[in-house]
Amino acid sequence: MLTSASPDLQRAGDDVESTMLAIGRRARAASKILATADPAQKTKALLEAARAVRADVAEILAANAIDVDAMHAAGTSTAMIERGTLTEARIEQIASSIEAVAELDDPIGQVIADWRRPNGLEIERVRTPLGVVGIIYESRPNVTADAGSLCVKSGNAAILRGGSDTINSSGAIHRALVRGLEAAGLPGDCVQIVPVRDRAAVGHMLAGLNGTVDVIVPRGGKGLVERVQSEARVPVFAHLEGICHVYVHSAASLDMAEKIVVNAKMRRPGICGAMETLLVDRAVIETHLAPIVEALQSAGCAVRGDDDVRARCADVTEASEEDWATEYLDAVLSVRIVDGLEPAIEHIERYGSHHTDAIVTDDVAAATRFLSGVDSAIVVHNASTQFADGGEFGMGAEIGIATGRFHARGPVGVEQLTSFKYRVHGSGQTRP
Amino acid sequence: MLTSASPDLQRAGDDVESTMLAIGRRARAASKILATADPAQKTKALLEAARAVRADVAEILAANAIDVDAMHAAGTSTAMIERGTLTEARIEQIASSIEAVAELDDPIGQVIADWRRPNGLEIERVRTPLGVVGIIYESRPNVTADAGSLCVKSGNAAILRGGSDTINSSGAIHRALVRGLEAAGLPGDCVQIVPVRDRAAVGHMLAGLNGTVDVIVPRGGKGLVERVQSEARVPVFAHLEGICHVYVHSAASLDMAEKIVVNAKMRRPGICGAMETLLVDRAVIETHLAPIVEALQSAGCAVRGDDDVRARCADVTEASEEDWATEYLDAVLSVRIVDGLEPAIEHIERYGSHHTDAIVTDDVAAATRFLSGVDSAIVVHNASTQFADGGEFGMGAEIGIATGRFHARGPVGVEQLTSFKYRVHGSGQTRP
Repeated sequence: MLTSASPDLQRAGDDVESTMLAIGRRARAASKILATADPAQKTKALLEAARAVRADVAEILAANAIDVDAMHAAGTSTAMIERGTLTEARIEQIASSIEAVAELDDPIGQVIADWRRPNGLEIERVRTPLGVVGIIYESRPNVTADAGSLCVKSGNAAILRGGSDTINSSGAIHRALVRGLEAAGLPGDCVQIVPVRDRAAVGHMLAGLNGTVDVIVPRGGKGLVERVQSEARVPVFAHLEGICHVYVHSAASLDMAEKIVVNAKMRRPGICGAMETLLVDRAVIETHLAPIVEALQSAGCAVRGDDDVRARCADVTEASEEDWATEYLDAVLSVRIVDGLEPAIEHIERYGSHHTDAIVTDDVAAATRFLSGVDSAIVVHNASTQFADGGEFGMGAEIGIATGRFHARGPVGVEQLTSFKYRVHGSGQTRP
Repeated sequence: MLTSASPDLQRAGDDVESTMLAIGRRARAASKILATADPAQKTKALLEAARAVRADVAEILAANAIDVDAMHAAGTSTAMIERGTLTEARIEQIASSIEAVAELDDPIGQVIADWRRPNGLEIERVRTPLGVVGIIYESRPNVTADAGSLCVKSGNAAILRGGSDTINSSGAIHRALVRGLEAAGLPGDCVQIVPVRDRAAVGHMLAGLNGTVDVIVPRGGKGLVERVQSEARVPVFAHLEGICHVYVHSAASLDMAEKIVVNAKMRRPGICGAMETLLVDRAVIETHLAPIVEALQSAGCAVRGDDDVRARCADVTEASEEDWATEYLDAVLSVRIVDGLEPAIEHIERYGSHHTDAIVTDDVAAATRFLSGVDSAIVVHNASTQFADGGEFGMGAEIGIATGRFHARGPVGVEQLTSFKYRVHGSGQTRP
């Protein structure tokens, strides 16, 4: 059912709304079954889905070819087409990612805390699913499998709304997920994909589909996340941008600082954990600044700096006020001199995005103050900001990184896709 | 500054908005200081606040007398006036409640989890404050002290908007809290009270005061909570109602069931954890139903029932469809016969409010299935639903009970008023 919007807009609108509400109802019903499914059943569903992805390589590649042809015909950018193109190797990666999620510990039913009251009541706090997770993503077909499998493992039904450029590829991957679910005796509706290209579908999801969507996770560029954050009537796990900092403190080892800074910017400049602004303490301006800037430039990074930086380093363009608040996602960096620890914290609090920020220092007290004073999801002492990743944290896989302070913060893995309830075990207690 | 709304409505509206936005800005600034305050400083602030409440008994009683006189003049209901009236004993309770919060463990900075990665990175998950908490409550002056002290302990700035009927009483208690904060060297703005009676103030809080309010906690009747839940643009910790159930299973001991049921309804029928519907398994209809209903009636409870109940018990009026979805908050109960465990779970999922639900049974497997299948914040085996309370859970104090599945669920105590961040400690690690 890969329909486009009807040319009759009024009718198309009606169709989209009723299609979306029906998806919501089916998701809620499936979520009730999935919530109390046996852990082995969920594992089996994912292993069978991985097997189905491998069995369907030809079909998935054929579906992808339709998408890629359409993108070429529509004049889509080469970068977008590259991201949307599947190969046998990429499909194998998709299958093994599903297997990796299958092998994670099942979070549902885990006892997070338990204690006994003086009256003999035993109280347990246990993990439960959130319910129904809506994922809105741009044209990366692998998100279909990643998000779907993380939701199944965490006992949540998923409603996937991928970019319409890769709707056929996502559909083919989705069919494999459904076969896995059904092979394990679970409803195929545990993971649904939105079959309509009409962007109104997103609006319906953001409104919560009559209370059937519990949380929205957007995966994509700033424009998408901004729309989701401003319009959603349900909770959102997201980060708008990652304006990450490294602060080279007065007690930083030059060698360590140089390695961390170059890695934080240049390993992969386009990820959300990449450093966007380097703060160098005035106390080490004569010793640390030039070597670090030169190392960055040798690695291919364009540097923008304040007057102090430009006075000491060659080929540095002027950083404007706007640069301090810019996420380049590219081999570009802004560099600023700060007059100590507190001004560094103030800069980060003013211009940062509460994602990931690091200090390089041998002074433990300074590190402690930095980690406490910087209000970011991830604060780092003497390591690269590029470790901001669920896999690197040992969570196995993530659906994204959240910068809000509610529920999920930092990498969103299977545990962060759960809620909890209290189980109280008594032996006839009544309250006096 | 106990102003009423100006008679010039247009100007009053402007004043309210600018007053509220200024309160938000001051709260955000104070929250930054409070977030990293020393635990001893917060404890001192609360102990000094308790001392100030005791020292100010005369002033608080005088302020309360103004409110009570105004309520009499306005023809306010006796119940409302009773709730809004302070006595020396009630003021002493307020002071000791503040002391009890002072003595709780400080949650901020607590390491919730920590682990080491193969590359040597040490990762800690530590508790942080949420930021600024807005509390909107009806005319119970003691909430001023309870909510304010819980926020201080959890490192959050508080914006309190109490019922206008007790604005003078709340103001007097608030002044004592501010004296405590200042005596400990903390900004008085850590706990602010909204000084305007205009209801537009609530609307501004629900809109988030330009991003300075992080969460809203409503304390009051269904009308208030409904408005907050539908209008708030920030997260809300709340429960709309507590339609709590006790299910007397086929393997329930009659004696235990009778005690639990009578306690769950009649100990205090007006609290949110009071049972509103009793489900009796058809298997014990002849043995358990009549004794339990008679015990309830002897305790003064009016009983409404389905046909099966009415056929077996005297003085039972007919329960309508609406009764199953009604929170009486009174000595009234609806009673229904169910055909086993699964129909009991289905009834609760259909009509309940996901607050607190209990099963009475000697069958452990049945209890396990009930506790898993009922999607409520608190699920109870063989104990009264009236234990749904932060104090009874050992949390020390609570600001309310939440039924959402996000962030806080169940009793909201100091821990639930926190977020977390990840601290990553390295020794120069870069990501390959």
